[in-house]
Amino acid sequence: MRRGRLAVVGLGPGDSGLLPPLARTALENATVVVGYKGYIDLVEAVHLQGKKVLSTGMMGEVERVNLAVDEAQAGGDVCMVCSGDPGIYAMAGLVLEALDTRGLLESVDFDVVPGVPAFCAAAAILGAPLMHDFAAVSLSDLLTPWEKIAKRLDAAADADFVIAIYNPRSKKRAGHLEAALEIIGGHRSPDTPVGIVGRAFRPGQLASIATLATLDVNLVDMQTIVIIGNSTTRVVGGHMLTPRGYHDKYDVGGGR
Amino acid sequence: MRRGRLAVVGLGPGDSGLLPPLARTALENATVVVGYKGYIDLVEAVHLQGKKVLSTGMMGEVERVNLAVDEAQAGGDVCMVCSGDPGIYAMAGLVLEALDTRGLLESVDFDVVPGVPAFCAAAAILGAPLMHDFAAVSLSDLLTPWEKIAKRLDAAADADFVIAIYNPRSKKRAGHLEAALEIIGGHRSPDTPVGIVGRAFRPGQLASIATLATLDVNLVDMQTIVIIGNSTTRVVGGHMLTPRGYHDKYDVGGGR
Repeated sequence: MRRGRLAVVGLGPGDSGLLPPLARTALENATVVVGYKGYIDLVEAVHLQGKKVLSTGMMGEVERVNLAVDEAQAGGDVCMVCSGDPGIYAMAGLVLEALDTRGLLESVDFDVVPGVPAFCAAAAILGAPLMHDFAAVSLSDLLTPWEKIAKRLDAAADADFVIAIYNPRSKKRAGHLEAALEIIGGHRSPDTPVGIVGRAFRPGQLASIATLATLDVNLVDMQTIVIIGNSTTRVVGGHMLTPRGYHDKYDVGGGR
Repeated sequence: MRRGRLAVVGLGPGDSGLLPPLARTALENATVVVGYKGYIDLVEAVHLQGKKVLSTGMMGEVERVNLAVDEAQAGGDVCMVCSGDPGIYAMAGLVLEALDTRGLLESVDFDVVPGVPAFCAAAAILGAPLMHDFAAVSLSDLLTPWEKIAKRLDAAADADFVIAIYNPRSKKRAGHLEAALEIIGGHRSPDTPVGIVGRAFRPGQLASIATLATLDVNLVDMQTIVIIGNSTTRVVGGHMLTPRGYHDKYDVGGGR
């Protein structure tokens, strides 16, 4: 039997202009493409032609992974697609875990094709909000107790990390973002810039910059990325800027 | 005069297979390409033909930015190239700062083209070490006091973030990585997996997985990415795996 391959492939924000050639080639060579329906929709039809396409709904992560592993076990060249980077709040881990549990790590080739993460796409649209040490925190408490999430937010805010928030808000957890902003506000000025970006590099892109005090949480949904500046972040010409410190040490554009 | 444009473009890890089409197009359309010599060398020659190419040495960040801004101010279509993502420990911030200081944000188009960050490329090679909340910390104390770096490492370790370390070690700061591992070891078991990746997706790629107790710091240089697992990270079949918690909640591959 042909040796199966299971590649977890990042689609980036969803614009084909941000899909690297390695990911494109993995899709082209695949015999089977598996993914959440919303992500399959981001793949250009040309890459799906003549392939077996298996899509599942939002909460079907485990089902999706087992489908992909079944196909790879049967000798398929399988792409599991994720949005953003497959290693950040996506499917690389669950796929690896399933291959291990099912004893297939020796017999199936496992591969991760990195992509442009959602928070980097959001940062690019906002200007340069990351630039220094940063932390990423998901507010989803489906798999992590809220106490642990709160502790991480508090630690990251206290140590002056720029903070990128994933899964900030859903109908079931409408209050989590407010709670997170309050924890962070215990360590940061109310004037701290906060950028939000939804549907980055896609039709309907929404981006805006407010502050910890003025952010309208109703603009935020589950797929929005929220980036909270550190103590030095400021807004220049409508862009968020976290300096790396060069300005103190060197003379950026000084005297010109 | 033609309106200038200054795009800060991420080259990703350096393999052209990880250069997204948007970045490629920005390079193709540019009249001027500016960057650190080592990054200019990563750009395929075909993208540099017929263009003005301005490269500077390692420490010439401010000089490089001012050259790029001069060209954009003169109406050029300028690409400032960075490795990885331009918003992560790279040039997007310094460019924005210079445009602001020189009063050019109204007259020059500023743009960031996101890329595949070094720590995502490293994670992909190691398996799935990120997967849950993570923090990125640079050990370079050129622009940040060591006390602040130490505080961030301590906070991130205490709150059980996966930690990605940038700039882990240079001749001038040979002891920083050991110091960082000791701080983190105050909160994590000595068995915690630690992955290191140098030259990801490039000739001479080096990747290995050790533990907090066994890591050989001599394998690490300034361009290596070091990823330290959280309290749940384990090694399966030679890959680093940080579960997202599905295994407790669902039944991954169970009984099959």
